[in-house]
Amino acid sequence: MHFTSEQRLDDGVLEREFTLGEIPGILWTPASASASAPAPLILLGHPPLGLRKMYPRLVDRARHSAAEGFATATIELPGSGDRPRLPAVEQARADMRRAMEAGEPVSDEIIDALILPLVDKSVPEWQAALDALLSLPEIGGPVGYSGGVISIGIRLAVVEPRISAAVLFAGSFVPRAMFEEARQVTIPLHVLLQWDDEGNDRQAALDLFDAFGSKEKSLHANMGGHTGVPQFAGDAAAQFFTRHLK
Amino acid sequence: MHFTSEQRLDDGVLEREFTLGEIPGILWTPASASASAPAPLILLGHPPLGLRKMYPRLVDRARHSAAEGFATATIELPGSGDRPRLPAVEQARADMRRAMEAGEPVSDEIIDALILPLVDKSVPEWQAALDALLSLPEIGGPVGYSGGVISIGIRLAVVEPRISAAVLFAGSFVPRAMFEEARQVTIPLHVLLQWDDEGNDRQAALDLFDAFGSKEKSLHANMGGHTGVPQFAGDAAAQFFTRHLK
Repeated sequence: MHFTSEQRLDDGVLEREFTLGEIPGILWTPASASASAPAPLILLGHPPLGLRKMYPRLVDRARHSAAEGFATATIELPGSGDRPRLPAVEQARADMRRAMEAGEPVSDEIIDALILPLVDKSVPEWQAALDALLSLPEIGGPVGYSGGVISIGIRLAVVEPRISAAVLFAGSFVPRAMFEEARQVTIPLHVLLQWDDEGNDRQAALDLFDAFGSKEKSLHANMGGHTGVPQFAGDAAAQFFTRHLK
Repeated sequence: MHFTSEQRLDDGVLEREFTLGEIPGILWTPASASASAPAPLILLGHPPLGLRKMYPRLVDRARHSAAEGFATATIELPGSGDRPRLPAVEQARADMRRAMEAGEPVSDEIIDALILPLVDKSVPEWQAALDALLSLPEIGGPVGYSGGVISIGIRLAVVEPRISAAVLFAGSFVPRAMFEEARQVTIPLHVLLQWDDEGNDRQAALDLFDAFGSKEKSLHANMGGHTGVPQFAGDAAAQFFTRHLK
């Protein structure tokens, strides 16, 4: 991991851009984090729109998390931002748009082609990032995962024992195969659902919540569309992490 | 309203039993409540099992609410406790038990006969209690309603303009007619659903949440059965009231 830039935000949060091999990423640490008082870490998931486009929302989540004492980090997803495109995923995205514009349901085949390669490629990258991040003296465990793509969060919760709690955003298509993986999840979960999310299948989200194997899981459904998560819902998610990571 | 007993609980909460005509009730006020600093009020709904049986859970909710600065009050439901039985409701309850023991679905007719008379009779009683409670100098507005029977909460939210926010517990049968009333609800709602509630139709609860007309409504689903609402879910409901009643 190489840090490529560093700036102190006005609230004292230290923002550092880094590269991990070919993968760009950003790390935010609260002013209080130090080798003698390492901060617990939350990995910030996000949709595959590119870090640059997602930056305003990410830095907002990072600032709120830092105010609660958490370090946060994120990496560019495969095929997004300046990373090489994944032709099969691009094709699936075009197929999805075509189906939606034609008012047709998005088929399981399209959803699989859109999501599964992203999960397969990105999860080992998140794990490599975790190796690097946890080697920094100012970052400690335990680790949380927060956000979308929900299938990435599911896979990480299953395969990565260092992740001990997750806030999942039920806002993207979920391949049928991920329902089986969801049954293997046992960590505490806090699932956010935007009830009127235009790009989301509400019933699939409810079925997925039902499938999770975790003994502690909560579904928080709020009104509004995909990006309309109310502030109080963000606060509740922060309280979930405070309960489980501190 | 006549106070019939008064005791100071160990945390300073003043517990007073009262009667309102034939109806027994209990009022809890935080130690800090006074004529110069009246406490906002939360009406504590409960299932029709009798105040005596419900007392341990009610006083627990009252203590938690008092710690947040809220007065709370509850009244005996018609047909419960020492109040005269409602023969038609008793008949419906027997029919419901018979259906459930036979593994049959509980018919809409049984649900209507069980719930609608309770709503029709109890809502004016809650309103009369509200008149009396709000005339006390140590009780101020605004007013919240919290708990079950959810159909009573729905009707109150529609007809009683002094109620400005409600935490509803989706844990009882809901007559079809109440879905129409739910569309007329416009106050902020926080709906609790126990995902594995043995006595509850989960899909009906989700449909009801969808039906509410409120612009701000949140569904909080947690694991466990009817009485297994986790402490953190109670805390979230308290925060909802603090946001809306203070």
